[in-house]
Amino acid sequence: MSSFADRLNAVATESEALLAHLLDDAPLAGEVTRPQRLVAAMRHAVLGGGKRLRPFLVVESATLFDANRDGALLAGCALELLHCYSLVHDDLPAMDDDDLRRGKPTVHKAYDEATAILAGDALLTLAFDILAREEVHADAGVRIALVRELARAAGLGGMAGGQMLDLAAEGRALSEQEIVTLQAMKTGALLRFACRAGALLGQANATQLAAMEQYGAAIGEAFQIADDLLDVEGDAATLGKAAGKDAEAGKATLVAALGVAGARAKLESLIEKSDAALAPFGPKADILRAAARFIAERRN
Amino acid sequence: MSSFADRLNAVATESEALLAHLLDDAPLAGEVTRPQRLVAAMRHAVLGGGKRLRPFLVVESATLFDANRDGALLAGCALELLHCYSLVHDDLPAMDDDDLRRGKPTVHKAYDEATAILAGDALLTLAFDILAREEVHADAGVRIALVRELARAAGLGGMAGGQMLDLAAEGRALSEQEIVTLQAMKTGALLRFACRAGALLGQANATQLAAMEQYGAAIGEAFQIADDLLDVEGDAATLGKAAGKDAEAGKATLVAALGVAGARAKLESLIEKSDAALAPFGPKADILRAAARFIAERRN
Repeated sequence: MSSFADRLNAVATESEALLAHLLDDAPLAGEVTRPQRLVAAMRHAVLGGGKRLRPFLVVESATLFDANRDGALLAGCALELLHCYSLVHDDLPAMDDDDLRRGKPTVHKAYDEATAILAGDALLTLAFDILAREEVHADAGVRIALVRELARAAGLGGMAGGQMLDLAAEGRALSEQEIVTLQAMKTGALLRFACRAGALLGQANATQLAAMEQYGAAIGEAFQIADDLLDVEGDAATLGKAAGKDAEAGKATLVAALGVAGARAKLESLIEKSDAALAPFGPKADILRAAARFIAERRN
Repeated sequence: MSSFADRLNAVATESEALLAHLLDDAPLAGEVTRPQRLVAAMRHAVLGGGKRLRPFLVVESATLFDANRDGALLAGCALELLHCYSLVHDDLPAMDDDDLRRGKPTVHKAYDEATAILAGDALLTLAFDILAREEVHADAGVRIALVRELARAAGLGGMAGGQMLDLAAEGRALSEQEIVTLQAMKTGALLRFACRAGALLGQANATQLAAMEQYGAAIGEAFQIADDLLDVEGDAATLGKAAGKDAEAGKATLVAALGVAGARAKLESLIEKSDAALAPFGPKADILRAAARFIAERRN
């Protein structure tokens, strides 16, 4: 097995090329005319950055179940487009009001607010367009399951709902359990989907799907704690976005609730949880074990 | 056949009940906790108004092809949720900046801007969640076709792209053809989808689908002209929203390009076009013929 870093980079490179292709100047079937400014804003939001962790998780989970890699990469890119929409809308003045993302001006800064709203809407919509394509999986039943699960992960019971709870909680003290619930929706749902998507593409059985759900839940929680630690300890140059914004906004984080040492201990226990979930798959899941450690220990 | 008005009202009543059910307090499968404020804003955006023209077109097109009515109503409500998302985002201060919609405060006025952005996002996402449900159609292939076509109709090559072109065109003179193209995307794409959706649900053949596409294109164009005439001639009390906003914003409309008399003549020719498209279906399509006339002649 090549190293974790090599495989992460390989998916990032492939994703960047495929995302550019998906957003390129070739019109979609049925398109009347191309709204150039909208496409440019979507490209600004998506291309030229990002670890592409979500496509990586889809691809490597799919590999675990011997699913077709090209279909998994396409599904992973659909998920990445949806993730990018959430960043564009999150950065808006009425939301987190951020000027910088991945070291570049945010979409509403580079274009304008109306364009950023529409670019986010169009990215979200394009994610479902892509998931519905035959190249993702020959079986329409598999594709419709992906559509259904992504909509659930992204919608009011998942990411969008978690963002709402997060906004409503600003300046208010939440219990540890409330924070875990909020974050399981806000950032966890898409990461759980990434891991389940690979299993769905590989037509895994219910036990295997449940194992991937547990793995995804553990790394999702770890991802958010690592993110919150970075907000406390990182600097803007490394992060490519402003640091220290959570405390300033009075955001409820587990780091605030548990302290830095407590949060680090929690990260270790989450790595153990993700290892336990992967136990039935043996050494074939080593890459996903390495991913969990990477997520917990990342520095940007 | 019961009258057109009766059948339109029947679908409106059924849609209102089904939409309320789809947005009610029963959590979705997999939901962690319910973001009450978000759900309330979504309900505000969707319930208590609207002619439910899009669900009506899905249901009556499906009836033409002997498709199951319950599935068609569910697909129609998914489309209506997506339509409502577009209104919520369109009304935002950075977009059309409207305070009033269907005689009620717009979502960002009744709640706040962040909540309105998220409510729109969640409505768009919920539309795909619903289309993916087995109750829409037993065949996953039919459901995935609906997902694909709705994403195309709503995305950068359809509604969102048309909104972008519309914003970019403000204050600039467009040719008649440019206006037709823009509106075919901005409002036409969802209405075409409504008519095609019924045919897809009824597993119509390619000729029949093409006929429904032509019908949908004609009524879509008629819908927009009637809307623009209302903006010129209507008043806020009848419309439930501000009138005269297009001229104020320097928006490109066919009424501005052709004049009121020219626009009325165009409406008549579009009714003839829609009749021609429906000719192969005989009297079974009378309800859709009546719908075309209603759309062209509506007063609010």
